[in-house]
Amino acid sequence: MRIAVDAMGGDNAPHQVVTGCLLAAARYPDTELVLVGDREALEGLLDGSPRPHNVSVHHASETIGMGDDPAHAVRRKQDSSLCVACRMVADGEAQAVFSAGNTGAFAAAATLGIGRIPGVHRACIAAVLPTAGGRAVVVDAGACVDCRPEWVVQFGIMGALYAEEVEGIAGPRVGLLNIGEEPSKGNSLTKAAHDLLRNCQLDFRGNVDGKDVFRGGVDVIACDGFWGNLLLKSSEGAAEFFFSLAREAITSTFWGRVGGLLVRPSLRQMKRRVDYAEYGGAFLLGVRGLVVIGHGRSGERAVVSALERAREGISHDLVARMQTRFAGGEEDAA
Amino acid sequence: MRIAVDAMGGDNAPHQVVTGCLLAAARYPDTELVLVGDREALEGLLDGSPRPHNVSVHHASETIGMGDDPAHAVRRKQDSSLCVACRMVADGEAQAVFSAGNTGAFAAAATLGIGRIPGVHRACIAAVLPTAGGRAVVVDAGACVDCRPEWVVQFGIMGALYAEEVEGIAGPRVGLLNIGEEPSKGNSLTKAAHDLLRNCQLDFRGNVDGKDVFRGGVDVIACDGFWGNLLLKSSEGAAEFFFSLAREAITSTFWGRVGGLLVRPSLRQMKRRVDYAEYGGAFLLGVRGLVVIGHGRSGERAVVSALERAREGISHDLVARMQTRFAGGEEDAA
Repeated sequence: MRIAVDAMGGDNAPHQVVTGCLLAAARYPDTELVLVGDREALEGLLDGSPRPHNVSVHHASETIGMGDDPAHAVRRKQDSSLCVACRMVADGEAQAVFSAGNTGAFAAAATLGIGRIPGVHRACIAAVLPTAGGRAVVVDAGACVDCRPEWVVQFGIMGALYAEEVEGIAGPRVGLLNIGEEPSKGNSLTKAAHDLLRNCQLDFRGNVDGKDVFRGGVDVIACDGFWGNLLLKSSEGAAEFFFSLAREAITSTFWGRVGGLLVRPSLRQMKRRVDYAEYGGAFLLGVRGLVVIGHGRSGERAVVSALERAREGISHDLVARMQTRFAGGEEDAA
Repeated sequence: MRIAVDAMGGDNAPHQVVTGCLLAAARYPDTELVLVGDREALEGLLDGSPRPHNVSVHHASETIGMGDDPAHAVRRKQDSSLCVACRMVADGEAQAVFSAGNTGAFAAAATLGIGRIPGVHRACIAAVLPTAGGRAVVVDAGACVDCRPEWVVQFGIMGALYAEEVEGIAGPRVGLLNIGEEPSKGNSLTKAAHDLLRNCQLDFRGNVDGKDVFRGGVDVIACDGFWGNLLLKSSEGAAEFFFSLAREAITSTFWGRVGGLLVRPSLRQMKRRVDYAEYGGAFLLGVRGLVVIGHGRSGERAVVSALERAREGISHDLVARMQTRFAGGEEDAA
């Protein structure tokens, strides 16, 4: 299998992206990695260590920055590493594309450059959230806002397929993100989506609120991209804030500091369990190619995880399965 | 001043509501508390200890449960403790009303029974969120969904007035809850609200995302009630989940358990800082009377805090100020 990597995207690019690719290439000799970006810079980084047989460089003259306006950048920078990497998938030169760069630009480049699966209204981002049950897939995590009810239903369908094929969750349970459990709760979008979800081929478990999602009662959380993004960011923000408060409280007393040293190893281990780097990448679902979006802060470990995810997606033929699922047209729940 | 208390509302009613009122009555001899509910049950709870001069009972024959459908319950149970307590404010027999019962029913009973301030499109709930800067007021926290942009702007105006008068935050900075900082980010509602907020008499600091809210850059977070509720619940859920993971990790090793005992006092102190019981109540803003909504789980300490809030609101004449602010009509930013 062959994966195109936007080597210039992300806060730690190209250095850590290249290092991550070298690690992954050594671990998976059957996987060809094409580093897309400035040839000179990339060759420079590759020199010094023996070049693995399964790593190559594909030149791209431009780079899209983290702060660039997505739509504008994608239109103007057609020879950017991001656009070129996406085109490799569109042209069949690679089966998957990975970037830790500008998420909005990546979603736009992938949707425009590779195209949507026929029958899919909108592409969505599937992000993984740690929960008491292990993990849950949030779809959509920010690709699509101002959604129609039938789009949210499709996010649930795509998220369930992804959960089953890539996350290995058998018979995924699907919930609708809402502000209360009762079907009558919520806004006009959740009420309409709830009705549609009850009548489609999913193990639909009803509404879940912002607290329920962490209790692990469902494996897939279907929602508008605005809410999904809000859910992910506010839970990340809350966790960071409360841990910083806890650290401050603990280190304010002598015995607290002693205790803090003793609990540190356990907390480190726990942190690994919920670290984004362990998940590495979020899939953009609904496009005619495998698209794995890395966190902007991705270090080499996150790059390796994301590439492992891409491998899973390719070996489970996720895109073909998605196409089959939407080919009948009966999933258009509208 | 006189406060009507729905003594039958909440998971711990009437017992802890009554105990909380007795504590508050002793602390604030200038405040009359009217316990509204089943006379027999309430007199029974009051017997045994000497009855303070500033506590009385007002009979109401019905009770609205936590699971009752709000609109239906308010229409059908006009002699419920909740509706009767709201009517006391409408009739000028009390200056404020408190309930820890069914939030939806309380918001409906207050809006219908007391009425909105002329010029206010929709009432909103102002909930207080702990942040690195101390605290921020989230408006709306769940009273109103499917908002129009001008409603969100009014939430910002009411939230700022509340922050200044009740929370004591001078010159409150207002932010718009969104999924990115740039004005172009978000959905159709945030884009329109952003434009309106830039042109109104507020210290508007632009968009804040789910992570930013905890950093304390703004004092008031204006948003649709669906998002505000999602923000509050998901941050509460995330904090609970991550602390339970941390507890599990710490207690899984011997030295972790020893360290855990040493850090416990510091953590208890920190927990108090962010405990909802310290805030006690959320105000329903935009109605012609002071309405304080307690958490369903309110114990006596939370009841005392909520009554202290109500006192602040009364002594700062919050409702009259709100009426003056909207009397001109120029705040109708639409």
